[in-house]
Amino acid sequence: MKPNFYKKFETDFRIFTRHQKNAMATIQKYLEEHKDRMLQELVDLLKIPSISADKAYKADVIKTADVVKQRLEEAGCDVVEICETPGYPIVYGEKIKDKSLPTVLVYGHYDVQPPDPVNLWDSPPFEPVIKKTELHPDGAIYARGSCDDKGQMYMHVKALEYMTKNDELPCNVKFMIEGEEEVGSESLGWFLERNREKLANDVILISDTGMIAKDVPSITTGLRGLSYVEVEVTGPNRDLHSGLYGGAVANPINILTKMIASLHDDDNHITVEGFYDKVEELSVEEREKMAEAPFSLENYKSALDIDAVYGEKGFSTNERNSIRPTLDVNGIWGGYIGEGAKTVIPSKAFAKISMRLVPDQDWQEITALFKLHFEKLAPKGVRVEVKPHHGGQAYVTPIDSDGYKAASKAYEKTFGKTPIPQRSGGSIPIVSLFERELKSKTILMGFGLDSDAIHSPNEHFGVWNYFKGIETIPWFYHFFTKIKK
Amino acid sequence: MKPNFYKKFETDFRIFTRHQKNAMATIQKYLEEHKDRMLQELVDLLKIPSISADKAYKADVIKTADVVKQRLEEAGCDVVEICETPGYPIVYGEKIKDKSLPTVLVYGHYDVQPPDPVNLWDSPPFEPVIKKTELHPDGAIYARGSCDDKGQMYMHVKALEYMTKNDELPCNVKFMIEGEEEVGSESLGWFLERNREKLANDVILISDTGMIAKDVPSITTGLRGLSYVEVEVTGPNRDLHSGLYGGAVANPINILTKMIASLHDDDNHITVEGFYDKVEELSVEEREKMAEAPFSLENYKSALDIDAVYGEKGFSTNERNSIRPTLDVNGIWGGYIGEGAKTVIPSKAFAKISMRLVPDQDWQEITALFKLHFEKLAPKGVRVEVKPHHGGQAYVTPIDSDGYKAASKAYEKTFGKTPIPQRSGGSIPIVSLFERELKSKTILMGFGLDSDAIHSPNEHFGVWNYFKGIETIPWFYHFFTKIKK
Repeated sequence: MKPNFYKKFETDFRIFTRHQKNAMATIQKYLEEHKDRMLQELVDLLKIPSISADKAYKADVIKTADVVKQRLEEAGCDVVEICETPGYPIVYGEKIKDKSLPTVLVYGHYDVQPPDPVNLWDSPPFEPVIKKTELHPDGAIYARGSCDDKGQMYMHVKALEYMTKNDELPCNVKFMIEGEEEVGSESLGWFLERNREKLANDVILISDTGMIAKDVPSITTGLRGLSYVEVEVTGPNRDLHSGLYGGAVANPINILTKMIASLHDDDNHITVEGFYDKVEELSVEEREKMAEAPFSLENYKSALDIDAVYGEKGFSTNERNSIRPTLDVNGIWGGYIGEGAKTVIPSKAFAKISMRLVPDQDWQEITALFKLHFEKLAPKGVRVEVKPHHGGQAYVTPIDSDGYKAASKAYEKTFGKTPIPQRSGGSIPIVSLFERELKSKTILMGFGLDSDAIHSPNEHFGVWNYFKGIETIPWFYHFFTKIKK
Repeated sequence: MKPNFYKKFETDFRIFTRHQKNAMATIQKYLEEHKDRMLQELVDLLKIPSISADKAYKADVIKTADVVKQRLEEAGCDVVEICETPGYPIVYGEKIKDKSLPTVLVYGHYDVQPPDPVNLWDSPPFEPVIKKTELHPDGAIYARGSCDDKGQMYMHVKALEYMTKNDELPCNVKFMIEGEEEVGSESLGWFLERNREKLANDVILISDTGMIAKDVPSITTGLRGLSYVEVEVTGPNRDLHSGLYGGAVANPINILTKMIASLHDDDNHITVEGFYDKVEELSVEEREKMAEAPFSLENYKSALDIDAVYGEKGFSTNERNSIRPTLDVNGIWGGYIGEGAKTVIPSKAFAKISMRLVPDQDWQEITALFKLHFEKLAPKGVRVEVKPHHGGQAYVTPIDSDGYKAASKAYEKTFGKTPIPQRSGGSIPIVSLFERELKSKTILMGFGLDSDAIHSPNEHFGVWNYFKGIETIPWFYHFFTKIKK
């Protein structure tokens, strides 16, 4: 057996090294030749305002799905379908080389966040411009969705194009690109339940996160869960004159501020009963390991132009925004918000509140706890309604999985460094959904940067990052297939 | 001297009684004959959206001034002028019969509150409709400004018409109708300083308040002062993704709610340092007298559809909204307030806050105390700005003045009841300004009702109240002139 074994290893090794050299050479050459077109295609995609949160943009969201379908066909998929759902359609595509080979399922989303407040954008959110910056000497694409997630999703389409056009695709690939990620992926569960066979895979690959820095590649190994609710406080049955009624009736805005303020104690712990009961507590070792990630509090503060950070007592900034649950008001409104003055006591006041959750907190349970707690806070004289919006579970991925190992090797190839495993504060609720429904692990290869301002005015994505992603992804296919063989 | 004295008295008495009978007969007859026209003229005035708070309506505000000028001329003024100011113009009119006779200065305003929220109006705010209701079997005019103050101001124009057309004007009259009352009468002080001579008078008459009920006439003897401010809390220099930054930076909305919530303690006392230092404390007797005014807490609550009233511990509802100072948020906004969900930490959050003040509190001093206190509340990690908007002093008028006596007799004539002196929670800052600049007392003869929903959707003014006002005003002129002779 020994000689055989040796022979096999030797053969594999020769095939591997030869393949490696070719790939390394050809991909860089290919990207150089097709750079302008690959940028223009992304720019065209970014021009469509696919805002899933606002029904006014329904036609644009659907149009975007059609464009994605066409691009997947051009990139080499054998089959591409627009799959209808109770909500926005999911674009499914596949290229099956050989059923005996491993299968990678790529997930991404073609919908984007609303651009509000539009007046803070330096250029219109849906008229992409490429500008050079200190951090992006090769330029960055400024547009809503450039990083989250059209830009990062499209890296996978272009990586497929490279692999098919150059006969470098080593395995099977499936794409599932949805249009409701920014509003809670409400139809995705419905779709997964009905398509387990079709979506069968060995690993799920997503680029919808970031890396620590351009020269510090990282792989996201943890995500926070989410519970998003809208609250409504109703006082008198109509708006009242604040002179005639001021001081005598409960003002829904004053009451709402009191209720929201009470959701944090003086140490910035969240006061919702039972909120922390299931929170995963990290070991001292884990926290020490986290603390090793490069981080400058001064740079962090100056980048945000704040004189101090703020958060839960007893935890560092990097812990507060990754391994600890939070509660933030994302929007509040009530009364007169126009120009000038209006002396009114409004009938109603509203707020949108989201809680970021950590492993072992169940988002539906937390939503219920919040509803119970918040409604109890209401004094006599007002009525309170809590409307659950959407949510998702937190997730942690093991760093000893085949997928993680393949991703790590891919980054080593293109960055020359081993990526750092990183817990992210963001939420991609569908990752835990995938594990439950499709029984496979998800690898989060993100190429964005914190400074990309996703969900903010002037969202952008570095041209360098875009092409680095397209270059790195084929290596993941390569190593994953090799490890699985 | 005795006989002479007797003779004089007898003559006066005969003249008086004869005059009285004629007046009583002729005014009711005149109003009957001209009812439809007098209603139509008010409807036409209400159609112009003279919203002084919103610059978009500038042309309409100015147009309204022109219409008022024309109506004053038609009603019999000898001189009417559009007086330019740093802000919106003031319409001045006069009819001087004889310089030796007393002079009544009528004040009113032709500007209106913004109609927001427009969607809560049953009919468009600037398309007046007359509808019969249980309280208003003769109908009520539904439109922004119908009661506050176009309708009540126009009662005086029509009363003048009656008096001039029927030779019943017993004295001199001057009109000063401004266009900035709803935004703090910012140009009025400027105008008064420059026109003390022109505006010289023996009493100022205003209808911009209400009465207790249709069958319970009342004269407003007290008004609350006002301090209106806008606050802005700034955190990070841009909107942030609440997943990546949530829990690690101060969220301006969370901070703003904490700051506002802290402005009242558990007894609903206002916590601004020094806020109560100069508050006029009423005697037990005064409070007992107030408590005699007819009031049903059950009706009050059911009219507003609330299960409980809410306010400062130790005071009744009628005290809370009249003799006690208050602090209300009139508007709040920040973050994403559109449809659906956006997981954002906004860079800024805002609120409009007004404080109603009572006699001896100085509005400028209170504004300064608030600014000092509020800015101190800001934790590290945010910046706070307090922008003073406008304000005015509280006011109390004595019930033994000639003006009050004349008004009281006028109500007795037309309501058959002695009116109740009443402290109002509202503010007409200019009343104390008049006393300072023009050295004369103001009489507040209001014909509106609390249920008229001024500053609210579906503002209306009873047709009965409108004509009752037109009928009562000439009696004020009559008795005031008589007392002054």
